[in-house]
Amino acid sequence: MTLFSRKHIDFLLHEVSDLPELLKEEYFSGHDRETADMVLDTAFEIAQKEIEPHFVDSDQKEANYENGEVKVHPGVHGFVKSQAESGLLSATFPEEVGGSQLPESVAGAAAFIELCHSNSFPMYTDLLSGCVKLINSFGTTEQKETYISKMLTANWMGTMCLTEPQAGSSLAEINTKATPQNDGTYKIDGQKIFISAGDHDITENIIHLVLARIDGAPAGAKGISLFIVPKNNPKNCSESNDVKTIGLFHKMGQKATPAVHLAFGAEGKCTGYLLGKPNQGLPQMFKMMNSSRLGVGLTGLALSSAAYYTSNQYAHERKQGRIPGGNENVLIAEHPDVKRMLLKQKAIHEGGLALFIQVYSYLDWQKAGKEIEKYAALTELLTPVCKFYGSDQGYHSVNEGLQVLGGYGYTSDFPLEQMARDVRILSIYEGTNGIQAQAVLGRQVQVNGGAPFQLLRAEIEKTLSHLNDSCLFKRDFETSFKKLQQVTSTLLSKQNPTELLADATLYTEFLSLICVGWQWLKMSLATEQMDTEFNESFKQTIGYFFRYEFTKCLYLSEILLKENKITV
Amino acid sequence: MTLFSRKHIDFLLHEVSDLPELLKEEYFSGHDRETADMVLDTAFEIAQKEIEPHFVDSDQKEANYENGEVKVHPGVHGFVKSQAESGLLSATFPEEVGGSQLPESVAGAAAFIELCHSNSFPMYTDLLSGCVKLINSFGTTEQKETYISKMLTANWMGTMCLTEPQAGSSLAEINTKATPQNDGTYKIDGQKIFISAGDHDITENIIHLVLARIDGAPAGAKGISLFIVPKNNPKNCSESNDVKTIGLFHKMGQKATPAVHLAFGAEGKCTGYLLGKPNQGLPQMFKMMNSSRLGVGLTGLALSSAAYYTSNQYAHERKQGRIPGGNENVLIAEHPDVKRMLLKQKAIHEGGLALFIQVYSYLDWQKAGKEIEKYAALTELLTPVCKFYGSDQGYHSVNEGLQVLGGYGYTSDFPLEQMARDVRILSIYEGTNGIQAQAVLGRQVQVNGGAPFQLLRAEIEKTLSHLNDSCLFKRDFETSFKKLQQVTSTLLSKQNPTELLADATLYTEFLSLICVGWQWLKMSLATEQMDTEFNESFKQTIGYFFRYEFTKCLYLSEILLKENKITV
Repeated sequence: MTLFSRKHIDFLLHEVSDLPELLKEEYFSGHDRETADMVLDTAFEIAQKEIEPHFVDSDQKEANYENGEVKVHPGVHGFVKSQAESGLLSATFPEEVGGSQLPESVAGAAAFIELCHSNSFPMYTDLLSGCVKLINSFGTTEQKETYISKMLTANWMGTMCLTEPQAGSSLAEINTKATPQNDGTYKIDGQKIFISAGDHDITENIIHLVLARIDGAPAGAKGISLFIVPKNNPKNCSESNDVKTIGLFHKMGQKATPAVHLAFGAEGKCTGYLLGKPNQGLPQMFKMMNSSRLGVGLTGLALSSAAYYTSNQYAHERKQGRIPGGNENVLIAEHPDVKRMLLKQKAIHEGGLALFIQVYSYLDWQKAGKEIEKYAALTELLTPVCKFYGSDQGYHSVNEGLQVLGGYGYTSDFPLEQMARDVRILSIYEGTNGIQAQAVLGRQVQVNGGAPFQLLRAEIEKTLSHLNDSCLFKRDFETSFKKLQQVTSTLLSKQNPTELLADATLYTEFLSLICVGWQWLKMSLATEQMDTEFNESFKQTIGYFFRYEFTKCLYLSEILLKENKITV
Repeated sequence: MTLFSRKHIDFLLHEVSDLPELLKEEYFSGHDRETADMVLDTAFEIAQKEIEPHFVDSDQKEANYENGEVKVHPGVHGFVKSQAESGLLSATFPEEVGGSQLPESVAGAAAFIELCHSNSFPMYTDLLSGCVKLINSFGTTEQKETYISKMLTANWMGTMCLTEPQAGSSLAEINTKATPQNDGTYKIDGQKIFISAGDHDITENIIHLVLARIDGAPAGAKGISLFIVPKNNPKNCSESNDVKTIGLFHKMGQKATPAVHLAFGAEGKCTGYLLGKPNQGLPQMFKMMNSSRLGVGLTGLALSSAAYYTSNQYAHERKQGRIPGGNENVLIAEHPDVKRMLLKQKAIHEGGLALFIQVYSYLDWQKAGKEIEKYAALTELLTPVCKFYGSDQGYHSVNEGLQVLGGYGYTSDFPLEQMARDVRILSIYEGTNGIQAQAVLGRQVQVNGGAPFQLLRAEIEKTLSHLNDSCLFKRDFETSFKKLQQVTSTLLSKQNPTELLADATLYTEFLSLICVGWQWLKMSLATEQMDTEFNESFKQTIGYFFRYEFTKCLYLSEILLKENKITV
């Protein structure tokens, strides 16, 4: 069974997004439509061969910790190898470090295809590539030489070590210690929890990027630095660097990726290497967090897609119940309530994916060196929105898919119950959605006198200007878009910042509906090249979105405009 | 940790509901406030001693099937025994069969208390008592004598056997066969799936109530009869009646209750006894289904309560993040976004439970012999609404509780992830919520020229008439209530029944918000007797409900009034 629509992906990349223009840029001159197609074909091949066969088994045989060793599912080993050998792992990196300068929009689509088949496997390589990005951005020449080629070939892997028992959402509370040594290195001492892929038996070394506090550093967020802390000595991988697994957390889902409790320097012998500048750990790390945030949101949409195609197939095989006036049981796909549940799922990932490709293309324009500030601002504003929408709506979508299957959906005879367990973490990973919402309303909407918001408005208005006034959804959109602007200025006029931020979650839901609604309008401008079957389905889905989802703007704005917040 | 508010329950029973008047009725003369209190104390005692200690363990050690035998968690054995010995199992039954004629409203509150501590254990005894209700309503004198005392003492247990592989939501498709024998009994032949507590090692016999089709019966729903089919010969329990377990379904949650695949008469030796009239199986079974539906909805609210008290405690222990302008981490319970998540949970089960107690009191008035038709009509209308609201909103509430705990919530270190798995089935059990919605809009709202809806309207208007016009929420309520009436008449005017029913799910969500909103207004009339602490909390929760939940009426009515359904 296919778990995604290649046609929709191609439509987004080649008809809706800026990719055709991006491919004319010098930076992307190694790529064209053909190489983009090949990348997506490769991703699907890996998904079918190296991920799908292990989806259920890797859930049933959870990563386990015994005799000091963490063993992960054998399928992960094969996947990581293929991802490296195929070149997908390094694809978006510059040619100078062994990458192929693939546009992020194409790489994002490829990731989406893999994620539809298991969301736990690609997490290993996403973390790995995130680490390389950081080392490539902030590392010394020596550090780059030591780590990058080893990592981009997956001989070594990597993790992000942020969370500590007392420092979860509030990273300012981190207290892992880094004590300077005479040779310029640091002794690392502390514990980290919830470290995804924090230990495993895939590679001879694991390169941890660890947030820690140099002795005497300022308190709070301004005293946190970033360190490279290899599990084993990078010059001799048989020599331990005193990084030990204390235990694994048992999770509701995502069982192929262990969440590890790590001790650094329990024996006083853990060496770390400063990455970038002292006390700049958090802003540096956020560079990686942004792509992880997009990855988490994208995972939600991929699970929505997988759930949709699974439940859609079931709905076209299962006969049950009659249409009023009918004499015979019909396929459940013919019942309006089931149609609604299926359209909900489809609308969520198709519209959501458009927004992600939009953001990936903003990243690409920055790489191409065009209007870097503008596209960086749009990326910063939309990244938490994407994370919020993809994880939150992905969760609702998967659960709607489970509902389509009725009692069967709750059993392990079908993959929906696993998907429902897997998807549940996404609104928590990489900053809870509540935290994302604080970032949106507390920072991005306010920064530079509201400049990013104005840039977004200009982008949206560009789309609106191309739309014929006869467009059925344009008026609804414009009404709610004006409302959003009214809500935004009302909130920003509040003197009390706690009051301003009290309903940030609802504000972000509202903003995400506007952004996804914008993408549906943008998509509607590009359907001319598509065939009748695509357009019939598109018409239904955009119709569903504006009627059932976008209408929520009505009640969200009503709440947001109320005075006297009751939660303050 | 307490997982429910006894104060809120007492408030509902003794200040808000009709219970004080009901207790003056002859039928309930054996009870007063003191006995009601004792029943609730007993339920809590059983919950603490016989349920809570096994909550996690019975999830980890799933019921298992080996060598033809189903073994369930030992804790279930103890619970069933206590439930029978304490008299709770038989409490609502008439004195003539060994019950104590306890009001349903008190029994419902007691069930709620138990369900807060595990939703899988009470399912055994709920099914048992449902079976006894059916036998008591439709059985011959001999059948009553054979089964009722054995069952109300939990020497034997009982199940409902409805679903077959091809007959899930559509029971009309049932094809288990019942062939008449010369002695007046029937040979039963067929398979049933998803039978909760369908086999176990607790009692020497299990009395299955089985829907089957007598040879030559009319096709469809009108040819289905109900049979008593004991697992073992009731005259000699060591003699098998050819009812075999084929296997168990592995479920996402609710693991203490096995979902069994049963074969009746695989060896041609299964005897069934007709219960009630031939071909009246479905209407008879629906009598039991209604109380099961209420039970499922109530379970959702109980899980909401358990999730609320668990996450509320965590939020009052966990310090993380600062309030804008503050210098120190505060308890997360002080963050507005967390307050909102906690209030959401509290509003859902406190308001929802009020609606349930309302419906239980309608059942009680029927037992007391007062205005039976009126209260039966209200019960029929509100039962699917309760099932819908409790299961759907219970699910949202539990997931909000998990979110409060962040990453910890996703791990087995806290009970939230188990609650989230357990609660997920409730919108499917006893008729999916989509089916409930069809029952509401397709039957209950239309039946007898809309009489039940008019009765509900009169009930609501009675509450409104007692409210002072200065009540802040009265106006909001009245606006949406009028809208509901407009939506209802617009929908009922549709010629095409498919179009009328297309958005039944949204209609039922809308109606449920009106019903729960009504209960919040009714509760607000009764707060005078309560102390300041209760009233402060009440003010916050009702404020939350009308601001954040009730406001959804706005967008639901907007969708429901749109022409040209896109799902038809």
